[in-house]
Amino acid sequence: MDTWLTSLQTSTPQEGYELAIKLSRMAVKYTQPSAEARDKLRPVYEDDADALIAVSQVVATNFQTIAAANDYWK
Amino acid sequence: MDTWLTSLQTSTPQEGYELAIKLSRMAVKYTQPSAEARDKLRPVYEDDADALIAVSQVVATNFQTIAAANDYWK
Amino acid sequence: MDTWLTSLQTSTPQEGYELAIKLSRMAVKYTQPSAEARDKLRPVYEDDADALIAVSQVVATNFQTIAAANDYWK
Amino acid sequence: MDTWLTSLQTSTPQEGYELAIKLSRMAVKYTQPSAEARDKLRPVYEDDADALIAVSQVVATNFQTIAAANDYWK
Amino acid sequence: MDTWLTSLQTSTPQEGYELAIKLSRMAVKYTQPSAEARDKLRPVYEDDADALIAVSQVVATNFQTIAAANDYWK
Amino acid sequence: MDTWLTSLQTSTPQEGYELAIKLSRMAVKYTQPSAEARDKLRPVYEDDADALIAVSQVVATNFQTIAAANDYWK
Repeated sequence: MDTWLTSLQTSTPQEGYELAIKLSRMAVKYTQPSAEARDKLRPVYEDDADALIAVSQVVATNFQTIAAANDYWK
Repeated sequence: MDTWLTSLQTSTPQEGYELAIKLSRMAVKYTQPSAEARDKLRPVYEDDADALIAVSQVVATNFQTIAAANDYWK
Repeated sequence: MDTWLTSLQTSTPQEGYELAIKLSRMAVKYTQPSAEARDKLRPVYEDDADALIAVSQVVATNFQTIAAANDYWK
Repeated sequence: MDTWLTSLQTSTPQEGYELAIKLSRMAVKYTQPSAEARDKLRPVYEDDADALIAVSQVVATNFQTIAAANDYWK
Repeated sequence: MDTWLTSLQTSTPQEGYELAIKLSRMAVKYTQPSAEARDKLRPVYEDDADALIAVSQVVATNFQTIAAANDYWK
Repeated sequence: MDTWLTSLQTSTPQEGYELAIKLSRMAVKYTQPSAEARDKLRPVYEDDADALIAVSQVVATNFQTIAAANDYWK
């Protein structure tokens, strides 16, 4: 895999939140490397309430990590 | 995405809880940017016990982050 | 929403556990504001093993937050 | 609810683990107060692999709290 | 239950990971004490992708506890 | 099981993320030791949105552990 993650530090909470989203998506990419296969799944989950809630759970866990890594941007 | 998250600091636990709810909803917005599509999902999850429980799990994880960020408003 | 959460401090672990239950239920209330709709769901989840287990997961996450907020009542 | 939780301190990790199991079960009791109804559910989840795994997830989260509360019994 | 958990300390991360697996399995044992019943479930979950992923989630939560208990074996 | 985990320390966040993925997969290996059986499951989960989201949840939890173990590579 190319270099995609060199630091957990971000300048704002919003950047931290967007890094948490990237972390969440990268786990899918490591598990399903085919972009074509991943694209086929988009219509499946983006209109599925349960899937969208499950995605937000993953983002919440990753954001918890990024927020701690940045001392909550205090 | 517009600027929506500039700080994790809130003056009360309740404001913190409401920020946790916003964080939970924003992950859905980042994943499904169409407001129309998200509105269509509302009747699906708001009367579904399992979905509501899953939403409260996401809020609990995000509230854990916000509470730590605010030193539990001690 | 009325003021319902002014502090995470409780005098005993049991009070903390009961606050964790309240936090868990409030997320459902924020997501489904209609008491009538929520009441309709009660018979659905209160006799459903999977739903009850999922509720206890939410409570466990919220209790983790409240326990840390109270330095584990040491 | 009677007094059932006065401290998170336990003398051994195993006692802590058993307290985590009690915490997990109490959330179900708070949500479904009828012992009769809870007993009816036992045959449903005790022979269901997914339900047993979900129970162990709740216990893991509660044990994480109890372990931190006891400074990991170092 | 016999004495099975006297310490969270392990000499290596791998031992810690294996303790996390034991913790995960013990919750099932406390919930379903019958070895015969548990053995019947093995073929159900060991060839079920969702169940195996759910098991790995439980192990991840327990490993998080064990790793913190051992100061990450630094 | 052979020695596969001797340290949680990694030189970069990306290495830490890849260790989190390895941790996630090892739990499946401990639960389903047969490589043949695990290979049969790949087509089941790698094209299943829910399964891929659940995998990313496990990775998020393990990454949280690894990130804390490495003081967030500050």
